[in-house]
Amino acid sequence: MTWTPALPQTVRAIDVIRKKRDGLELTRAEVEGLVAGYTGGEIPDYQASAWLMAVVLRGMTRGETAALTDAMLHSGEVLDFSSLPGKKVDKHSTGGVGDKTSLVLAPLAAAAGVAVPMISGRGLGHTGGTLDKLESIPGFNVNLPVEKFRRVLETCGCAMIGQTAEIAPADRKLYALRDVTGTVESPYLICASIMSKKLAEGVDALVLDVKTGSGAFMKSEKDAAFLAELMVETGERMGKKVVALITDMNQPLGNMIGNSLEVMECVDILRGEGPHDLRELCHELAGWMLHLGGASKTVQEGKRLSEKLISSGAALSRFRQMIELQGGDPRVIDDFEHLPQAQHTMEVTSSANGYVASMQCEQIGTACVILGGGRERKEDSVDPAVGIVLHKKIGDQVSAGERVATIHYNSEPRAQRVQELIKASYEIAGAVPAEAPPLVHRVIGAEI
Amino acid sequence: MTWTPALPQTVRAIDVIRKKRDGLELTRAEVEGLVAGYTGGEIPDYQASAWLMAVVLRGMTRGETAALTDAMLHSGEVLDFSSLPGKKVDKHSTGGVGDKTSLVLAPLAAAAGVAVPMISGRGLGHTGGTLDKLESIPGFNVNLPVEKFRRVLETCGCAMIGQTAEIAPADRKLYALRDVTGTVESPYLICASIMSKKLAEGVDALVLDVKTGSGAFMKSEKDAAFLAELMVETGERMGKKVVALITDMNQPLGNMIGNSLEVMECVDILRGEGPHDLRELCHELAGWMLHLGGASKTVQEGKRLSEKLISSGAALSRFRQMIELQGGDPRVIDDFEHLPQAQHTMEVTSSANGYVASMQCEQIGTACVILGGGRERKEDSVDPAVGIVLHKKIGDQVSAGERVATIHYNSEPRAQRVQELIKASYEIAGAVPAEAPPLVHRVIGAEI
Repeated sequence: MTWTPALPQTVRAIDVIRKKRDGLELTRAEVEGLVAGYTGGEIPDYQASAWLMAVVLRGMTRGETAALTDAMLHSGEVLDFSSLPGKKVDKHSTGGVGDKTSLVLAPLAAAAGVAVPMISGRGLGHTGGTLDKLESIPGFNVNLPVEKFRRVLETCGCAMIGQTAEIAPADRKLYALRDVTGTVESPYLICASIMSKKLAEGVDALVLDVKTGSGAFMKSEKDAAFLAELMVETGERMGKKVVALITDMNQPLGNMIGNSLEVMECVDILRGEGPHDLRELCHELAGWMLHLGGASKTVQEGKRLSEKLISSGAALSRFRQMIELQGGDPRVIDDFEHLPQAQHTMEVTSSANGYVASMQCEQIGTACVILGGGRERKEDSVDPAVGIVLHKKIGDQVSAGERVATIHYNSEPRAQRVQELIKASYEIAGAVPAEAPPLVHRVIGAEI
Repeated sequence: MTWTPALPQTVRAIDVIRKKRDGLELTRAEVEGLVAGYTGGEIPDYQASAWLMAVVLRGMTRGETAALTDAMLHSGEVLDFSSLPGKKVDKHSTGGVGDKTSLVLAPLAAAAGVAVPMISGRGLGHTGGTLDKLESIPGFNVNLPVEKFRRVLETCGCAMIGQTAEIAPADRKLYALRDVTGTVESPYLICASIMSKKLAEGVDALVLDVKTGSGAFMKSEKDAAFLAELMVETGERMGKKVVALITDMNQPLGNMIGNSLEVMECVDILRGEGPHDLRELCHELAGWMLHLGGASKTVQEGKRLSEKLISSGAALSRFRQMIELQGGDPRVIDDFEHLPQAQHTMEVTSSANGYVASMQCEQIGTACVILGGGRERKEDSVDPAVGIVLHKKIGDQVSAGERVATIHYNSEPRAQRVQELIKASYEIAGAVPAEAPPLVHRVIGAEI
């Protein structure tokens, strides 16, 4: 399905740029004309980038944001899974460190009869990406054609792939331009980018995990809440049920950071084990997914159902099935020896007695990138085996000389750099333990 | 003389864009790096346009504006006439309708011993351009190479050419980009564009004629004064004497609009004839040019000297000499039959009794463009013969049916359109004459 704007000849790029520059509201036809013109190649990069900068500095109304999202969504293929029974629901995170809930949530929701057609991204900057984590499972194919994606979804209720060339091409082209023109940091553009891709999945509802704190892109809760409200309203304008949870990223989520290490931790969670914070957040998000997907009357009931599907092994079994259907080695679930392992480990120790008062969460994410577990540039490849295991988090007591983290590495000089960085990321202080930050700061939307 | 910035490798375009986007002040090295990188082709159009839009919306400090002017000035050749005796002075107007003072002022100052190496522009939008006016003189060559320009200047004390490829190439490239990205309208960018070109002429002093009113680019006096102050301070920071006169453009200057018509009116002024407002403004501007150029102790004395040089015929004789030296036919001075003449004329009459209360000055400029006397696009050629002669201006009494203007045209359908437009440009009202607006609103700078 391709899309032709109503009267493209009436929209001149220069007029749309000037109007936005002067702080006026663009019409839907103007936004559509600009997106279609740029995607089609009639509007050059230099006009698009001037417009993007005007948007960054002038902002957009809710109507403009919805029009932009809609235009980007309809620049390419919009998947249609309405022939499959039940509601289709997805979850999206704005990105964090150790943020691995997607691998737990997709099979978990599927086990409750809520289908999850998830299109994910790769790690960028200091944050990890779902696709990189999945690819640490030997053989796992994230590049399925749409028909194969549909068959996996039909068979096991969930499927996880990367963005295809057909989905929201306007976003791909605009994002590449934003990246080199200082126009990434706009909640309106971020909203349109996320929502156009997610709504192209053909879902009925969407649970947004908007991260805030030292390891998030939105450091302040205010900025996170603003973006969350924007995305919720944009989704609702397009007829979807959308909820956003503002969740904490002042420290990594769970204890494992690094691709194959994070797969292990997800398997732990699906086994009913694993760290408390990650487990709790998975149940919170699953509660919303099951509720919006019609599998439970309330969010609380959804959480209880989610716990049951973990303890019964139903969620783990879906994960195994999905791995098999997407060409991966399902033995990774039973024996982590089948996942990539780093050759060496190195400890990071505390130099003081006290309690962990805070963590430089972005710095810990950067440490994983330095080890080779993430990308400094888009074209870099990642080392699936390397990463960091945290033994201490905010509020934990430590003694001088006690280990706070273990580095899994394949390059000694990189490990040395990272050891310093992680040590410096821990603030050890006081005689009284700091309180761990709340897991969920706020819930926005879906008052249903 | 070409220019290499201090440490270009330390400046990344993306960082400079982000810094300006966030409203921070750029260092001189950052501004220089951006201008050199863009002019040299290492920084692409799409990064430059994002930066330009950030400048439009965030503004610039005086230091940044001076750094930008300096970087653009030194992107190309800077002329050096220091071997010529006496001070070199130029005048620049921000553009208006019927604004033809350059053709009077250059020979007038030269007659007083102040050299004028003038590099001018073409008409754009509703305003006329000095080069187009000069080219209506048969044979007149505005494209002299620099050495020939120097020889004309040495011989008769003034020379008038168009911008060469060697002068401020950064401005030419940036201006073309600004034109298509909605980033023309910034006083900082306008200042840097004007001042980099004018200072490349190697002048000691500069008189700026900043137009304000319904026919100017800066409609409000506040905006005109802001730009004027910016240009004066930028010039002074670069060691030049600069004064700006904020002058009226609520109605056309003089009575003639159109290229050869304006040459005729200038010859009239140089003969001591012509309309009062144009003559007065010429003497005001000449007073400043002669004063800053050291030919008079005060501006008042400069004005008196200017009047003398007209009545003695000395100024007219310089004009004749310059026309000859630049290949033009000097007989145009003695007989206007040697200038291009339109084939037809058509009267515009008043439909009411009363006084001219106001004029839509930009609309009258546009009328001349429609006749073919200006450009709708840069690549258009102009018809030197067409134009408009005004018989009534603000404050004049008119009777219903009395002619207010005469159209000189070569195309009947165009003349018909223009007749309506000019008629609608005149506001006839009241039983009491409106006061004509003051010629000079304000003088900024050069308190010496």
